[in-house]
Amino acid sequence: LTYCLGILLPAGLVLTSDSRSNAGVDQITQVRKMALVSVPDERVIVILSSGNLATTQGVVTSLREACGTSDLVYDLHTASSMFEAAKMVGAKLREIVDRDAKYVEPYGDVSANFLVGGQIRGEAPRLFQVYSAGNCIEASDRSPFLQIGETKYGKPILDRALTADTALDQAAKLTLLSFDATMRSNLSVGLPIDMLRYEANSFSVANFVTFDEGNPYWNELRREYSDGLVAVVDRLPPPPPA
Amino acid sequence: LTYCLGILLPAGLVLTSDSRSNAGVDQITQVRKMALVSVPDERVIVILSSGNLATTQGVVTSLREACGTSDLVYDLHTASSMFEAAKMVGAKLREIVDRDAKYVEPYGDVSANFLVGGQIRGEAPRLFQVYSAGNCIEASDRSPFLQIGETKYGKPILDRALTADTALDQAAKLTLLSFDATMRSNLSVGLPIDMLRYEANSFSVANFVTFDEGNPYWNELRREYSDGLVAVVDRLPPPPPA
Repeated sequence: LTYCLGILLPAGLVLTSDSRSNAGVDQITQVRKMALVSVPDERVIVILSSGNLATTQGVVTSLREACGTSDLVYDLHTASSMFEAAKMVGAKLREIVDRDAKYVEPYGDVSANFLVGGQIRGEAPRLFQVYSAGNCIEASDRSPFLQIGETKYGKPILDRALTADTALDQAAKLTLLSFDATMRSNLSVGLPIDMLRYEANSFSVANFVTFDEGNPYWNELRREYSDGLVAVVDRLPPPPPA
Repeated sequence: LTYCLGILLPAGLVLTSDSRSNAGVDQITQVRKMALVSVPDERVIVILSSGNLATTQGVVTSLREACGTSDLVYDLHTASSMFEAAKMVGAKLREIVDRDAKYVEPYGDVSANFLVGGQIRGEAPRLFQVYSAGNCIEASDRSPFLQIGETKYGKPILDRALTADTALDQAAKLTLLSFDATMRSNLSVGLPIDMLRYEANSFSVANFVTFDEGNPYWNELRREYSDGLVAVVDRLPPPPPA
């Protein structure tokens, strides 16, 4: 499996992916599940992938190759909005699944899911989830985060602590704690974690960080959070007796 | 779905179940998923159920009826150990599934899962999970909790804060927070929550509490925990920039 999380806030976007790819527990490797497409001062488009690796790489690589070709269906450089960019990802996914499904199905699931977030000049930052069917939904202030892959373990902390106006760095902390919760329970989600904090109207992908095992911040964050959480629970009164 | 959680500690057991039963979101009702069988000063056997309601009620009701009959296969009053009690639940489950499966399958899943916890004089408290197949596994100090039903949302807080020597009331608080996390994300898990705190060697089921919507402790716990968690995250340093 995989875990990817996108958070949409007034301040911008926090887009994050793990790196574990596996075909059974005896065949694991690291892959990058975040793809960046940017045009200076004009657009930043980020694609996070989960699902069949051949399918997701096929979609991303084909879309990269189409950049600058003025292909109306697939050129992310010409997409007039993030909605159009998300539709391009969905269209490419459908094309590849239509072509590959009958060959892949004897071996496994051909399907894939994507988060597509970013900003195109003239719009605020936006965030979409592209389903295996190629259609998509958009995040909003009522549902400011979208997840793909192993979504359940990492959701409670977001439900408790993320609001529509959380600051970008606070959302980044919650993101890492959400990944930590997931990785403690699901071996098929693993380090390193790639995280892009995109500040609204910056059109910059400069604040991209990778967290690996040796990262002191990552280790300190996990320990301090667990200690703090235990202290909070300690202070709560005990349940009343019968 | 359902959420049931059993925690085994040196101090005793915390056994907890939700009450939501549903056939689609348009047909929900409340049921009790915890059954208590006790013989004063000698045994306490608690059965928590998830899965097909006709199956789980069939198992529990039949086992209740067999109590005191000296039936060697099904009389929980004569089970010589909690392991034997768990095997009785598994045997009754197999009997009912063997009988009902072909009639039920056109309409849905006949299967069920159970947690069986308690203490029989001569043993320490023990906790088992009975699978749909009727076989079972036992909790230990290395895996002090067992879950059935919707297990994922409520697991991270247990992974972070529950240890093999957590006190009973601390485990009870973690249990309620685990249920809260689950109910925030899965509508098919719902109040009221039934919780038994069983103190080792007490052979008493007196500390049984039900938490419903209006319960002031439940509402205070949820609010104080969320506030405390947000404060912990606030105090953590922000992730380093790129």
